[in-house]
Amino acid sequence: MLNKNRDFQTFLGCDKNYNEADVVIFGAGYDATTSNKPGSRFAPSLMRLESYGLETYSPALDKDLEEDAKIYDAGDLELYGRAETVLDAIEVTTAQILADGKTPFMIGGEHLVTLGGVRAALKKHPNLHIVHLDAHTDLRDDYMGEPLSHATVIKRCLDLVGNDRVYQHGIRSGTKEEFALASNLRKTLPPKDVPVYLTLDLDVLDPSAFCGTGTPEAGGLTYLELMAKLKEAMELNIVALDMVELAPNYDQSGVSTATACKVLREMLLML
Amino acid sequence: MLNKNRDFQTFLGCDKNYNEADVVIFGAGYDATTSNKPGSRFAPSLMRLESYGLETYSPALDKDLEEDAKIYDAGDLELYGRAETVLDAIEVTTAQILADGKTPFMIGGEHLVTLGGVRAALKKHPNLHIVHLDAHTDLRDDYMGEPLSHATVIKRCLDLVGNDRVYQHGIRSGTKEEFALASNLRKTLPPKDVPVYLTLDLDVLDPSAFCGTGTPEAGGLTYLELMAKLKEAMELNIVALDMVELAPNYDQSGVSTATACKVLREMLLML
Amino acid sequence: MLNKNRDFQTFLGCDKNYNEADVVIFGAGYDATTSNKPGSRFAPSLMRLESYGLETYSPALDKDLEEDAKIYDAGDLELYGRAETVLDAIEVTTAQILADGKTPFMIGGEHLVTLGGVRAALKKHPNLHIVHLDAHTDLRDDYMGEPLSHATVIKRCLDLVGNDRVYQHGIRSGTKEEFALASNLRKTLPPKDVPVYLTLDLDVLDPSAFCGTGTPEAGGLTYLELMAKLKEAMELNIVALDMVELAPNYDQSGVSTATACKVLREMLLML
Amino acid sequence: MLNKNRDFQTFLGCDKNYNEADVVIFGAGYDATTSNKPGSRFAPSLMRLESYGLETYSPALDKDLEEDAKIYDAGDLELYGRAETVLDAIEVTTAQILADGKTPFMIGGEHLVTLGGVRAALKKHPNLHIVHLDAHTDLRDDYMGEPLSHATVIKRCLDLVGNDRVYQHGIRSGTKEEFALASNLRKTLPPKDVPVYLTLDLDVLDPSAFCGTGTPEAGGLTYLELMAKLKEAMELNIVALDMVELAPNYDQSGVSTATACKVLREMLLML
Amino acid sequence: MLNKNRDFQTFLGCDKNYNEADVVIFGAGYDATTSNKPGSRFAPSLMRLESYGLETYSPALDKDLEEDAKIYDAGDLELYGRAETVLDAIEVTTAQILADGKTPFMIGGEHLVTLGGVRAALKKHPNLHIVHLDAHTDLRDDYMGEPLSHATVIKRCLDLVGNDRVYQHGIRSGTKEEFALASNLRKTLPPKDVPVYLTLDLDVLDPSAFCGTGTPEAGGLTYLELMAKLKEAMELNIVALDMVELAPNYDQSGVSTATACKVLREMLLML
Amino acid sequence: MLNKNRDFQTFLGCDKNYNEADVVIFGAGYDATTSNKPGSRFAPSLMRLESYGLETYSPALDKDLEEDAKIYDAGDLELYGRAETVLDAIEVTTAQILADGKTPFMIGGEHLVTLGGVRAALKKHPNLHIVHLDAHTDLRDDYMGEPLSHATVIKRCLDLVGNDRVYQHGIRSGTKEEFALASNLRKTLPPKDVPVYLTLDLDVLDPSAFCGTGTPEAGGLTYLELMAKLKEAMELNIVALDMVELAPNYDQSGVSTATACKVLREMLLML
Repeated sequence: MLNKNRDFQTFLGCDKNYNEADVVIFGAGYDATTSNKPGSRFAPSLMRLESYGLETYSPALDKDLEEDAKIYDAGDLELYGRAETVLDAIEVTTAQILADGKTPFMIGGEHLVTLGGVRAALKKHPNLHIVHLDAHTDLRDDYMGEPLSHATVIKRCLDLVGNDRVYQHGIRSGTKEEFALASNLRKTLPPKDVPVYLTLDLDVLDPSAFCGTGTPEAGGLTYLELMAKLKEAMELNIVALDMVELAPNYDQSGVSTATACKVLREMLLML
Repeated sequence: MLNKNRDFQTFLGCDKNYNEADVVIFGAGYDATTSNKPGSRFAPSLMRLESYGLETYSPALDKDLEEDAKIYDAGDLELYGRAETVLDAIEVTTAQILADGKTPFMIGGEHLVTLGGVRAALKKHPNLHIVHLDAHTDLRDDYMGEPLSHATVIKRCLDLVGNDRVYQHGIRSGTKEEFALASNLRKTLPPKDVPVYLTLDLDVLDPSAFCGTGTPEAGGLTYLELMAKLKEAMELNIVALDMVELAPNYDQSGVSTATACKVLREMLLML
Repeated sequence: MLNKNRDFQTFLGCDKNYNEADVVIFGAGYDATTSNKPGSRFAPSLMRLESYGLETYSPALDKDLEEDAKIYDAGDLELYGRAETVLDAIEVTTAQILADGKTPFMIGGEHLVTLGGVRAALKKHPNLHIVHLDAHTDLRDDYMGEPLSHATVIKRCLDLVGNDRVYQHGIRSGTKEEFALASNLRKTLPPKDVPVYLTLDLDVLDPSAFCGTGTPEAGGLTYLELMAKLKEAMELNIVALDMVELAPNYDQSGVSTATACKVLREMLLML
Repeated sequence: MLNKNRDFQTFLGCDKNYNEADVVIFGAGYDATTSNKPGSRFAPSLMRLESYGLETYSPALDKDLEEDAKIYDAGDLELYGRAETVLDAIEVTTAQILADGKTPFMIGGEHLVTLGGVRAALKKHPNLHIVHLDAHTDLRDDYMGEPLSHATVIKRCLDLVGNDRVYQHGIRSGTKEEFALASNLRKTLPPKDVPVYLTLDLDVLDPSAFCGTGTPEAGGLTYLELMAKLKEAMELNIVALDMVELAPNYDQSGVSTATACKVLREMLLML
Repeated sequence: MLNKNRDFQTFLGCDKNYNEADVVIFGAGYDATTSNKPGSRFAPSLMRLESYGLETYSPALDKDLEEDAKIYDAGDLELYGRAETVLDAIEVTTAQILADGKTPFMIGGEHLVTLGGVRAALKKHPNLHIVHLDAHTDLRDDYMGEPLSHATVIKRCLDLVGNDRVYQHGIRSGTKEEFALASNLRKTLPPKDVPVYLTLDLDVLDPSAFCGTGTPEAGGLTYLELMAKLKEAMELNIVALDMVELAPNYDQSGVSTATACKVLREMLLML
Repeated sequence: MLNKNRDFQTFLGCDKNYNEADVVIFGAGYDATTSNKPGSRFAPSLMRLESYGLETYSPALDKDLEEDAKIYDAGDLELYGRAETVLDAIEVTTAQILADGKTPFMIGGEHLVTLGGVRAALKKHPNLHIVHLDAHTDLRDDYMGEPLSHATVIKRCLDLVGNDRVYQHGIRSGTKEEFALASNLRKTLPPKDVPVYLTLDLDVLDPSAFCGTGTPEAGGLTYLELMAKLKEAMELNIVALDMVELAPNYDQSGVSTATACKVLREMLLML
């Protein structure tokens, strides 16, 4: 029983070797630009721990993480300091996974980390479209003078791909100016042949289903409504994706972390 | 950047001067008659703090607290001791705001505080009708011998205005005797021309949406159902209103306080 | 006011004498085989405390625990040590209540305790059918080598009564093998003339309504959906029943315990 | 194993009959005058639950609650409403226990409850002296106009017995006026032949040892320092005593409740 | 009772006008460089709320905040984004208070904020000495490449004033390299005629007395030991000072915040 | 930066290969016989996570885990089910490490796990002596009929090695019978030439320093007192050791887990 090789604590069932894997998950536990309640930095490591309470099998999809998916868990990036440095590190990592022909799945951290992933994906796929599920528009041009923030991240993406290639779902909070800008974006899904980056801010869920997040916003989706939306979105040509804004310590019941794990399992099995 | 005038910490966006304001909010953090779990005393101050995580803009209403409303936050009344004294202080404050031609919006505190507001409003508007959203009937005649209690408050209001002018919504808990009495009350809304006092006990929400309250009662409204009800009710001729029974510390995620803030913002914008 | 007889702290309204009672509730706060998060051992005693925040009257049923039911609360069994010993103690207790012509209602504790109750009920009613409400199949043949576990309990029941007499509702988690086995079980309800053991694992509720449980699983029933299901099931010929898997400390708001109390009240009034 | 007599949940080892008991403990879970953080109302019932993690044997005293003490637990008084009513109920109960030749030991609740006990003890023992262990002077003449409050309780006692018969220990908080008054009180212990009422406000302990209280005040006693003080005080002629101001929910580790139980056990064994 | 001027919620007793004040306190709730557990951003606002459970009078000093001190509470700086910007804002504010002939007392936030204060004080007092109470050396030259961090702040101060003018107390954690550097610093106090900046990292307290901090480190000072040290240090020629690293939410009992308030009161009265 | 080998999340600095290591730590997160509050099962994995807030360098010892120690972290044993099976697994693992000439350091879990380690150590070192630091005697002969329990573990060790070879420190809780037996045991330390198994139940610490444990017992050691005791004990001929009974979730500040990590670091550096 003694484990003589240091080889443990991956996310549930994500225990394939790097080379044989189709999907690579990695943690990006950065939250330094969070304006309200910090703590999403703890999401990746606590999701790994909590995931052992989950089954590998999804009855909704009739698939099993052990048998029906090839996933490598690369652990967490060590991220600290200013946003530019952090985004560079994420971009390099994402690019490397893409270069190896695999799908990167980043687990935040705050929403700003998405920008690193989008930059890498856009270099490989110049026609990248972005599907954005979130409670918040994240469309400020700056936040208290800072252009790089969890509150500006989708605006930064817009700057890169233009209004026509961003699709927002679940939005219910933002400034008047952000909503004016948001009204120009699409509320549908991209066509099936274009490359897609999917970013899921878990606060798109209603706080009743998911209170472990820094800026909970009443009036959101139930778990089953999110699953229905994801099922549709995951049939697109996803080239990279992420899941952000779980801040586990605000939900002392552990339900938010368990639910994030379940959403992750379902998304991995949908891929 | 140094603030040389002590002038801070209002509820989000409620920073107009008293004179120019249409609506005056004030805290009534009293909870001494709470029979079950106390703590609603902390609601007003914690809502002020938490409100800074909320936007001033409501996409549901397409209005903004900064631009589309004139609200003064008068801070909290200092309330201590026996119920009669406390109710007197609330009545005086409410009367003064009414006398100045403004709409008082009290933030409890436990439900008993409503009685002070109703007394003041009734003096100015003898034909006052009362809309009551709550999980509990609050129709006991006394609670362990006490006529003034969070469990008797609507009975005390009934004593003042009669059965015909109280409209209950969301009720799902009480004694057999209370339900017998409640069956005589109206379940509709008052006509549009009469003056209305609206009292919102936040435990009308389901505990899944709002667990930060002293007597949570399963089977309640979702946030969106409450909003729909309020939208209708707020079109009446509201002369005074309150929101009670947030007990913030029972919800360590902060969601209940954030949701109370959002409900308050929407109600302020509906006025 | 001084109480000179030690006679207090029953579950709300369950204060009849043993002899006059129709229903006997008792606690079985055992959780030693819990594989994930322990703590259901605390459910019975905390439900007794919390129940004093609940009314004895149910408006949904228009019945009152004081007037319309005869229930004795026998307190908690002292359970410790290996599963066999514990199940024997539960079986003996359940059998004794059945022998006295009363309906036993056990409050867990983890789900394994059900096996003790089912064994006793089956001896008295050889044609026993089992209605199982749960998020999890509980159909493993063993859990890490152990045949007696909260994860195997329904398989152990199946071994006793066969596939035709187990009816599962609300299931959304398990292994592939368990779901293969579950597909043979019934999803309906038994005929009205057969004796029925009803076992309610409270995690059948969605975590938004009930986060105080060791293995919360998103995608479950709302409180009102559960009530509708129970109303139908409780019209059967129930000879014994239980409610398990509340782990109160994971829900620091107290809502899960309060909701368990309310479900218990409704079930007692439906009997 | 089935308990057919409703006879359970006393404080650990306090299971003698009323008639044979030397000491009678009862709960007075009232906290309506608490000016800061309420919740001491929950102390008696949670101490009973938590006491089962404690041994009946005290190695420090080499005595055992089962063998060396005869204690009856009378459960909790139902207290609600205005302070006068509550104090009357406490006085009646305490007087009755005293009349039966037993020592009353009240478990609060907030500190105001002491006044009820002192009144009863003073009637029987006109030469009553009061030993007061506390972080706070509790010597205000009124608190926001109220003469009956947890902040005035020792002043009310002083009004009854005079400065010469109150002995304060552990005090480290109060207004300037209170300290001026306190400087007239004794800091020693009464002579051994006079009847003594001992009131222990558990916040005399340092918050590091006891954080579960409404107004924690740094700079207090360690557990062992308190024990040393109590050992001395309990050798006096104690005719009645109390322990107040545990507010269990502020200490989620349960340590404060466990420590209160241990202090109670030691005091019961010292009697 | 109605407050028609927005003028409330200062720290307890710090309600003088700016012009008449000797000391100006302000909050600097920045925590973006925290490497471990964030949350000190919430310290200033929660200390204001919690301070209302504290008396203005200090029996240890026999002084009263209302009568014996003239303090203005300037509220909180709005700080967001990169460290340089934040430090500039703090420096400007501190300089302005110094220029007005008053003593600035900053309440962090994380320890990095000290650098802004030191910069301003050093400009006015080129011979500034620094007294540093902390569990951690904070002497790294960079943290993961960043020169501005809560882990490097005292090294940055050293760069400004040299080894001879920094005095460390309470240190019990750091890297080998940091301790090598620390061995060159003084462990005494500066002479009484030089200008002193005092920075108090509250984690110098033992976690038993103060668990509400991001990096608790066993083996620290008791509250009374800290008071003794401060009494000595506060007799120096203090020209500016701060208190940092309370992270209130990690201590759900509220004791850490209450203790920070008490330390602040004592320090204000010692000035 | 992308980690292509699954090789992460050891306890801080314990990252040597198995072959070069002198000490092997492994988790034994079993808590099924806990009679009071369960949860020590989570200790090993949460200590790994939390250890990243700790420095590898100990100023008290002037040693560094990276440079001055060779430690391999073998991860956690998967333990489930009956005590005998679990103890066998621990014994096999411990024996294997001992056979490889290394020192096993087990991290519990509850105290019963010690018995597995002692059995293995005794087979290799028949003259084994046991140093036991604990708040509780753990000397019952059985607990509610069970001979294998966290309350009987030292009695089981006594059965193996005899009274003369067990040395208890810090004990302050147990039954009268246990203390009678304990009076026969030694309170000193073994001679320096005999092989020693050291078992540290972390509840030997006072709850003020360590509240994250299932049965906290007031009146214990401070952190510094424990360190002094350990320094002496660790100079013995330690052949195997363990640290048990951290139950991390009862201390939501994280201090208990951080302190356990620090104690572990110090002990590893003392070896």
